[in-house]
Amino acid sequence: MIENKFPGKDICNQDLVSKFPLTAKKHSGHKSSFSIAGVDFGLDLVPVIAGPNMVESRELIIDIATNIKAAGAHFLRGGAFKPLSFPYRGQNYTETREKGIEWLADAKSLTGMPIITEVMEEKFIGLVSEVADILQIGSRNMQNYPFLTACAKTGKPIMLKRHYGASLRDWLGAAEYILLEGNHNVILCERGVVAPHTHRATSRFLLDLQVVVAAQEFTHLPVLTDPSHATFWQPWVGPMAMASVAVGADGIMLEVHPDPENAAVDPLQAMNYSQFSLLMESLRSVANAIHRRI
Amino acid sequence: MIENKFPGKDICNQDLVSKFPLTAKKHSGHKSSFSIAGVDFGLDLVPVIAGPNMVESRELIIDIATNIKAAGAHFLRGGAFKPLSFPYRGQNYTETREKGIEWLADAKSLTGMPIITEVMEEKFIGLVSEVADILQIGSRNMQNYPFLTACAKTGKPIMLKRHYGASLRDWLGAAEYILLEGNHNVILCERGVVAPHTHRATSRFLLDLQVVVAAQEFTHLPVLTDPSHATFWQPWVGPMAMASVAVGADGIMLEVHPDPENAAVDPLQAMNYSQFSLLMESLRSVANAIHRRI
Amino acid sequence: MIENKFPGKDICNQDLVSKFPLTAKKHSGHKSSFSIAGVDFGLDLVPVIAGPNMVESRELIIDIATNIKAAGAHFLRGGAFKPLSFPYRGQNYTETREKGIEWLADAKSLTGMPIITEVMEEKFIGLVSEVADILQIGSRNMQNYPFLTACAKTGKPIMLKRHYGASLRDWLGAAEYILLEGNHNVILCERGVVAPHTHRATSRFLLDLQVVVAAQEFTHLPVLTDPSHATFWQPWVGPMAMASVAVGADGIMLEVHPDPENAAVDPLQAMNYSQFSLLMESLRSVANAIHRRI
Amino acid sequence: MIENKFPGKDICNQDLVSKFPLTAKKHSGHKSSFSIAGVDFGLDLVPVIAGPNMVESRELIIDIATNIKAAGAHFLRGGAFKPLSFPYRGQNYTETREKGIEWLADAKSLTGMPIITEVMEEKFIGLVSEVADILQIGSRNMQNYPFLTACAKTGKPIMLKRHYGASLRDWLGAAEYILLEGNHNVILCERGVVAPHTHRATSRFLLDLQVVVAAQEFTHLPVLTDPSHATFWQPWVGPMAMASVAVGADGIMLEVHPDPENAAVDPLQAMNYSQFSLLMESLRSVANAIHRRI
Repeated sequence: MIENKFPGKDICNQDLVSKFPLTAKKHSGHKSSFSIAGVDFGLDLVPVIAGPNMVESRELIIDIATNIKAAGAHFLRGGAFKPLSFPYRGQNYTETREKGIEWLADAKSLTGMPIITEVMEEKFIGLVSEVADILQIGSRNMQNYPFLTACAKTGKPIMLKRHYGASLRDWLGAAEYILLEGNHNVILCERGVVAPHTHRATSRFLLDLQVVVAAQEFTHLPVLTDPSHATFWQPWVGPMAMASVAVGADGIMLEVHPDPENAAVDPLQAMNYSQFSLLMESLRSVANAIHRRI
Repeated sequence: MIENKFPGKDICNQDLVSKFPLTAKKHSGHKSSFSIAGVDFGLDLVPVIAGPNMVESRELIIDIATNIKAAGAHFLRGGAFKPLSFPYRGQNYTETREKGIEWLADAKSLTGMPIITEVMEEKFIGLVSEVADILQIGSRNMQNYPFLTACAKTGKPIMLKRHYGASLRDWLGAAEYILLEGNHNVILCERGVVAPHTHRATSRFLLDLQVVVAAQEFTHLPVLTDPSHATFWQPWVGPMAMASVAVGADGIMLEVHPDPENAAVDPLQAMNYSQFSLLMESLRSVANAIHRRI
Repeated sequence: MIENKFPGKDICNQDLVSKFPLTAKKHSGHKSSFSIAGVDFGLDLVPVIAGPNMVESRELIIDIATNIKAAGAHFLRGGAFKPLSFPYRGQNYTETREKGIEWLADAKSLTGMPIITEVMEEKFIGLVSEVADILQIGSRNMQNYPFLTACAKTGKPIMLKRHYGASLRDWLGAAEYILLEGNHNVILCERGVVAPHTHRATSRFLLDLQVVVAAQEFTHLPVLTDPSHATFWQPWVGPMAMASVAVGADGIMLEVHPDPENAAVDPLQAMNYSQFSLLMESLRSVANAIHRRI
Repeated sequence: MIENKFPGKDICNQDLVSKFPLTAKKHSGHKSSFSIAGVDFGLDLVPVIAGPNMVESRELIIDIATNIKAAGAHFLRGGAFKPLSFPYRGQNYTETREKGIEWLADAKSLTGMPIITEVMEEKFIGLVSEVADILQIGSRNMQNYPFLTACAKTGKPIMLKRHYGASLRDWLGAAEYILLEGNHNVILCERGVVAPHTHRATSRFLLDLQVVVAAQEFTHLPVLTDPSHATFWQPWVGPMAMASVAVGADGIMLEVHPDPENAAVDPLQAMNYSQFSLLMESLRSVANAIHRRI
């Protein structure tokens, strides 16, 4: 009636095969792995992707790249093009767009850090692809299927963030659009979902760690988490990152800024350099405890 | 602490003005109205938009247009381009695309019914705009901001469906992108949200009628509902449509098919012609009771 | 896999019969009706239950009883014993307990209005039963099964409010505990559920009108709604009450206070007398439109 | 307006102090600890509470106690009195009640394992208190405030499970009722919440690990998790337990049964002995990694 109590494993798997055959596991031990710019995804390494919400300036992004590299991060993140819920930007907020992409390229060539950055529109896929080692598709575009297809066709590795209202099915269905183009370097990233229980007036998302385990039961693709956007509150980011490693996430994305309170966006959620360094050590210990490494 | 108990009305309105000044009401009685293809939106009429999920064939769409017109519907809906959660179509399912648009044009010229249909990609905006009296932006594209801007620039009236994970803020923020282009003929449409309480294994959305009242408190734009997609269960569509009229919705969108069980998609949710006719009579009574008309 | 797409009607009904055979419908037209203190439940009347959140004083409750009676209400509600989320009461808040029950008795004998009031503890069931025509079991006690059984044994009609986190199954399962004692005068009342989309910082519940229709598909018991507690915001109560009647609810519970801003609790949600009178007229029109009456 | 963006820490703490002053932290480093039957709560130990859903027989509970003790568990759990969502028990299910309590006593005296078991009704508090080292208050009774008070008055340590629909505020407010009686040995336990995203047709709860961190920000009480009831699916229990330790939970509750498939209730969620032993080793490694111990 109201809920299906014992669906049975066979029924499940049959359904999976028909809905997203490329995304679904072929057998219980099936897991994809690949190396992007020398960084392993889907193996024993748990890559840490760090950086600011916004690529605010050339100096800033180079400084951050240098510092997170020193702390052991594997990838640099930073937004040049960013979807915002409202069309008006904050006072000290400017989408840096082409300039931001240029600065990311500078940070990459100076520090050697590989880059992941969001691409929002088909017309910028080419530009972003020149610099980005991974194209990030944001949660708001997760169900923009023609755009997924266009990104997939570049052959670049893609990180597909889960929409905060999407079910696991919706998410895996979206991934299938990418795999269907023959692009198999797909990484999934959970970034918090709408839930009735968010615990603070400032936050409206709950980091769904159960979906990491659930996704890994159904798909062979690596699954990462982004605790910063989910919790929207820096003091909670560290513990949720620790939990992400322990639950078996295949990577973590963290917001880092030298001066969070004066960040252009989301001042409540970024860690500063020393908080990030300390967290890296703790994450490393947890990774070792589960026979993985950071 | 955990939730803001008494925010006060002034604080609220101040926030509104800064985030979505064009979408926000200027004063409590502020309400937009406009006529599209001779059908009033935002006035005492409660327009009923009806039709199939998919424009399956020329014959089908003409037959439906004729029948819903006879029952008093004001607009014909029908999908030619449709986003699907999985890239593979069902057995008897074919996205009819350009052909579907052509058949909608035929139905329009033969019956005089104005058309609303979804547009999914920038490259088809021109084609769809030739036939559609209202461009529908589906829930999955609600936060595809560059696409909203591109649709807005056509000057065509736009129906913006709420994403099933979107807050009221997200939704009004998206509408602001359209109004910002000088396009003021914007209609909002609630189509069900993810919720922990959906009552049937077949459905995963809850029609949020509280948001109709909430949206009307904050914005001057007309707010419609789509009970068919929300409930995913035909026996619940009628009562939720009745409630939509009574709560003050500015229109209703309903799925109608001559033979629901054999519809190409979503066979559980469509009404047949006689169910639709009977419902129209009931909706009319409720509309009269609140001094509106259908 | 993740969700059961087409469970089929037979499977559903079979499940129902085994889990809550007394609460489940025997056939699709099965509907219970009964008269309590001369007021019909489950027939064409849509009873309106009105009154303050708290029985603050003898004068107040008599004044309210008089006024809501004049406006056409059928039942007087008022809390003497009330569960509060925190053990400390507000400044001008005193649980009136035995005194409150006494004042309700006075209001009843002076105005002839039948009474519904909450009972919270087994030891007060006797006292409350002397005055109350209906025992109200609050949402927080919905799953206190031994207490449900104890209330059921009085033979008094019972209104069972849905817990704001309870599924339809949970709710009907709780009702079954009452019916199992041979007490068949059970009324269900939806009062808002936790949901990710509540639209105001002041509210955290969403009135779930879809559950009214869903419950009526599965059970023969009358289903009411309480828009005041759900919306926690007076301007939304009227429209949600209208929608409740139109969706087919078998009654409505409304909070009324002569001076809402100075009410002992929940000052944002109560209507004053003139708001209530006007709403009653509108509710009556909607009821007539669907061939029911108020 | 719709949500309070930057409430500020002071506003938060002020609110806390007035609503649940005893439950709230006095300062950021404030944390309660106590020893129950020689087991530390709130210190560096992360106690593991294990056992079956139901105390099915004397032999079974002694066997389980022996085996979980060998694997390093600190406490034995087992239900003798259990609230069920429906009044009818399954075929091989019998609530063992007084007998079950007796068998728990035998298991305790034979193995030395301290006991936690649920108490459901005031009249059984005395009986349960004779054997239980911790009284468990189930999620369905979390808001049964008179019952909380009655349990508190025994002076026994109490574990208060969070209702699956309760906010953090509701939960801490309920704890305050216990502390108010002078009973300070209170342990909180998160057991899954209703959420739109549960990923399997079999489960309807999501283990909320964000609430562990959130609760620890606001209260000094130890916070545990129960991954078994939350996930309702054994393969997910281990990873969610690992994440619980890493996120900083002050203990874990796990369902263990020698033959899960033939358990009297909830056959999908229990671990068998070897699964439990292996998990204990992994949990120990994670605990060590964060300078705690199991």
